[in-house]
Amino acid sequence: MSKTNPGHFFEDFAIGQVFEHATPRTITDGDRAVYGAIYPTRFAVPSSAQFAASVGLAASDGSGHPVEELIGFHVAFGKTVPDVSLNAVANLGYAELRFRQPVVPGDTLRTSSEVIGLKQNSNGKSGVVYVRSTAVNQRGEIALDWARWVMVHKRDQTLEAPETVVPELASVVAPADLVIPSRLDFSDYDFAAAGESHRFDDYAVGEKIDHVDGVTLSESEHMMATRLWQNTAKVHFNTEARPDGRRLVYGGHVISMARALSFNGLANAQLVAAINGGSHTAPAFADDTVYAWSEVLDKAEVDAPGVGALRLRLVATKGRDESMTLKGDDGKYASGVLLDLDLWALVPR
Amino acid sequence: MSKTNPGHFFEDFAIGQVFEHATPRTITDGDRAVYGAIYPTRFAVPSSAQFAASVGLAASDGSGHPVEELIGFHVAFGKTVPDVSLNAVANLGYAELRFRQPVVPGDTLRTSSEVIGLKQNSNGKSGVVYVRSTAVNQRGEIALDWARWVMVHKRDQTLEAPETVVPELASVVAPADLVIPSRLDFSDYDFAAAGESHRFDDYAVGEKIDHVDGVTLSESEHMMATRLWQNTAKVHFNTEARPDGRRLVYGGHVISMARALSFNGLANAQLVAAINGGSHTAPAFADDTVYAWSEVLDKAEVDAPGVGALRLRLVATKGRDESMTLKGDDGKYASGVLLDLDLWALVPR
Amino acid sequence: MSKTNPGHFFEDFAIGQVFEHATPRTITDGDRAVYGAIYPTRFAVPSSAQFAASVGLAASDGSGHPVEELIGFHVAFGKTVPDVSLNAVANLGYAELRFRQPVVPGDTLRTSSEVIGLKQNSNGKSGVVYVRSTAVNQRGEIALDWARWVMVHKRDQTLEAPETVVPELASVVAPADLVIPSRLDFSDYDFAAAGESHRFDDYAVGEKIDHVDGVTLSESEHMMATRLWQNTAKVHFNTEARPDGRRLVYGGHVISMARALSFNGLANAQLVAAINGGSHTAPAFADDTVYAWSEVLDKAEVDAPGVGALRLRLVATKGRDESMTLKGDDGKYASGVLLDLDLWALVPR
Repeated sequence: MSKTNPGHFFEDFAIGQVFEHATPRTITDGDRAVYGAIYPTRFAVPSSAQFAASVGLAASDGSGHPVEELIGFHVAFGKTVPDVSLNAVANLGYAELRFRQPVVPGDTLRTSSEVIGLKQNSNGKSGVVYVRSTAVNQRGEIALDWARWVMVHKRDQTLEAPETVVPELASVVAPADLVIPSRLDFSDYDFAAAGESHRFDDYAVGEKIDHVDGVTLSESEHMMATRLWQNTAKVHFNTEARPDGRRLVYGGHVISMARALSFNGLANAQLVAAINGGSHTAPAFADDTVYAWSEVLDKAEVDAPGVGALRLRLVATKGRDESMTLKGDDGKYASGVLLDLDLWALVPR
Repeated sequence: MSKTNPGHFFEDFAIGQVFEHATPRTITDGDRAVYGAIYPTRFAVPSSAQFAASVGLAASDGSGHPVEELIGFHVAFGKTVPDVSLNAVANLGYAELRFRQPVVPGDTLRTSSEVIGLKQNSNGKSGVVYVRSTAVNQRGEIALDWARWVMVHKRDQTLEAPETVVPELASVVAPADLVIPSRLDFSDYDFAAAGESHRFDDYAVGEKIDHVDGVTLSESEHMMATRLWQNTAKVHFNTEARPDGRRLVYGGHVISMARALSFNGLANAQLVAAINGGSHTAPAFADDTVYAWSEVLDKAEVDAPGVGALRLRLVATKGRDESMTLKGDDGKYASGVLLDLDLWALVPR
Repeated sequence: MSKTNPGHFFEDFAIGQVFEHATPRTITDGDRAVYGAIYPTRFAVPSSAQFAASVGLAASDGSGHPVEELIGFHVAFGKTVPDVSLNAVANLGYAELRFRQPVVPGDTLRTSSEVIGLKQNSNGKSGVVYVRSTAVNQRGEIALDWARWVMVHKRDQTLEAPETVVPELASVVAPADLVIPSRLDFSDYDFAAAGESHRFDDYAVGEKIDHVDGVTLSESEHMMATRLWQNTAKVHFNTEARPDGRRLVYGGHVISMARALSFNGLANAQLVAAINGGSHTAPAFADDTVYAWSEVLDKAEVDAPGVGALRLRLVATKGRDESMTLKGDDGKYASGVLLDLDLWALVPR
């Protein structure tokens, strides 16, 4: 019997099945540093223990200083790859991702996934698998959870299709469902330290922000980032895994790059509270220069002192598009769009 | 007088001579993170403080969480380069490497080496130097020790040869000589968390395992790894140091890459207890795609609850060789073989 | 109104104006590790907590182990870029940089700058801005301060020139003004651990030291280093930012590379106490091979047990220049010189 993991195929999934993913992973300040070396992030909360303490997110001596939410996301997500998406044709989407508990150095994350939907494709060669994944820390608290659906190959195309189950997933996390860190307080927010003066009231629904800066991707950087999250998908690391001999950049690398670039114009979007959905609309490769723009989709009150929520569309593009065009007249994504991410961020009022 | 270190030449070594190598080096969680960004390692013990605690290798709060054994090896080995192998023609071999004490963040390693053998080559231009190196932590405990032999240039070829002394070195560390971490206990081993279900009894002597995955090497990654260990050999960093203008990849980089790749099929080979020997059979360069396979050479009982030892041949290849051929009919290493490493690993029973 | 930072132009600066730069940044052992992966540093104080403790710079259990001074410098300097030099034509110089307090993991640095000089260029298109920048830690202690002057574009060339104010800056920090860490004591200095035997008295004014080793720069490494310091200057990251399509290497990357290379011959120049001045005399790019040499410019007594100060010229070159020529007969920097840095280092007597 082979000792190696061949991954799961469409027929290996059943509604209600639960995967306890390997391997748990302890987060450290080393992760913070490597993240900061790979992404141009400057958000004040993960950058400064003192700033975090000033808004209720760390002890006054700086201990318990949260890392970037996306570090938790990438680690938790990477765990699911060997069981869920090793034989994926495509990552189709995310929904209902909520950050429920800040991740701090010393926390160990462990992820499990439950199969919540199955739908075989009409060609009989593949199907869509829906999972709800939950990452818990060493105290058993949920750090984040989310739904995701992927298209997975069938191993045996002669097998009958399972009963179709398509879960109902919210297109947007309702503001009342956002989980605000328990002691978050932006009442004494230090705008000079944070880098910009814009508050909740300065952002208008429909407003677009060109984040101006661009970063040209490099092979070593995207591999190091992806590996740090123990993501094992071959295409990111092995030039022999794709016919074109190129390493595909992990979609999460583009997410983190866009989030970091968005500092310039959204420096006060300190915390990501939820990801409502996201599409990786085109592949990215080394030597692409990635830019980002945002659109304010909605605004909401939240129940924490001095805190408001902005619903933002965060778009990454290959090459700068000052017109900030998402889709053409044909309804298709404009050429150059790499990522269309819909998220809730917490900002000072 | 020159202030810089010209390294030692063959005639500078004498039997019994001891080098106290510079510079001591404190290990941190930062090293763990950089290591995890450069190698696709997912072994549960170094990945998770909670998992380590569950097998007796960390405190219940996660403190004292050991790093990968190879971090200790690379740091300890890197120290010896300026004194032992700056003028080396070739690294000829290792033997009797034992990990004696887990290395945890906060530990400071310091290495010394004693010359235990000398043999001038018949051409009079170089000779083989045998050293036994010992790395101790800040409490004076031996973290690891090993023997190594290198071929070193003579500065003055007119000098007479020293008396030939060739030390007797064991071809394999005897199972009874393996040092098992004092509180290691695999009785309650969590196979789901570790990522595979295979136990000691599932592995048969003679069995070969193709680890499937490959990683294409990049210049920045091998340089960063090698530099992290303070290894100063010019050929790894300087395109002007070799006639072909290429940076040679540090052999230890291939060792760590192969060890990490071996997770897929040997996820439960949690700890490396000893390295019996190793040959770097061909040079590696950026853009090479490295794969790995293993062969079970032997199995042994060890005196710790739930723990067994597997003696493994770990082979790294350039390009994947599904036939897992070590040597051709001519007795020479098959084309593509980069590394032939012989080690003892500890697995759950 | 645009939400993004356009940077300041010459006419935006006024004498006495103070910038509180975003964003504070907490230093961790992760920064130490990434720094050690990118630069071949082996100085014993930042490498070993035990060595640091043995010279009074850490607690006996290794806590409070300072990081490399240049980590503090790069972080503090990076903060000033968005406010001071985003529209800079050129960085013209530094002066009077003093390290006043070791930076240890857990420290949060915050930088402010005061405009101390202004001089419009005769062409009316740009001007020189002089600032004094101060980085303080979370206890309000000054970690380092320095003066710097940059040439900045005017936005509106029709505006009148401001009154010219050129501050008086010392060409060298006087030895009596060096700040020696309060408990520094080199009386029991361990030369074997530090890697070289040369003491204060072994260095002569006028002596030059060829540091021998070279490192070929790579794109990912210089980007990761520069990003770690949250330096946002586009030209380092974006191939679309310069007409030649090349990423310019951050000058500080060359400083750190040269400092690390200087270990070979100046291993006992443990601490940098001050930077008297520095010029980036030519741009550096990936694939350049950087070497370094030093010249002893002066020696001074300082008031700490066993400690002396060497004033050193640290020169980085593209390609090795064994003749160690700084300038040609025409008084211009020799071809290949990248950096001419003037600093005070503390060495054992």
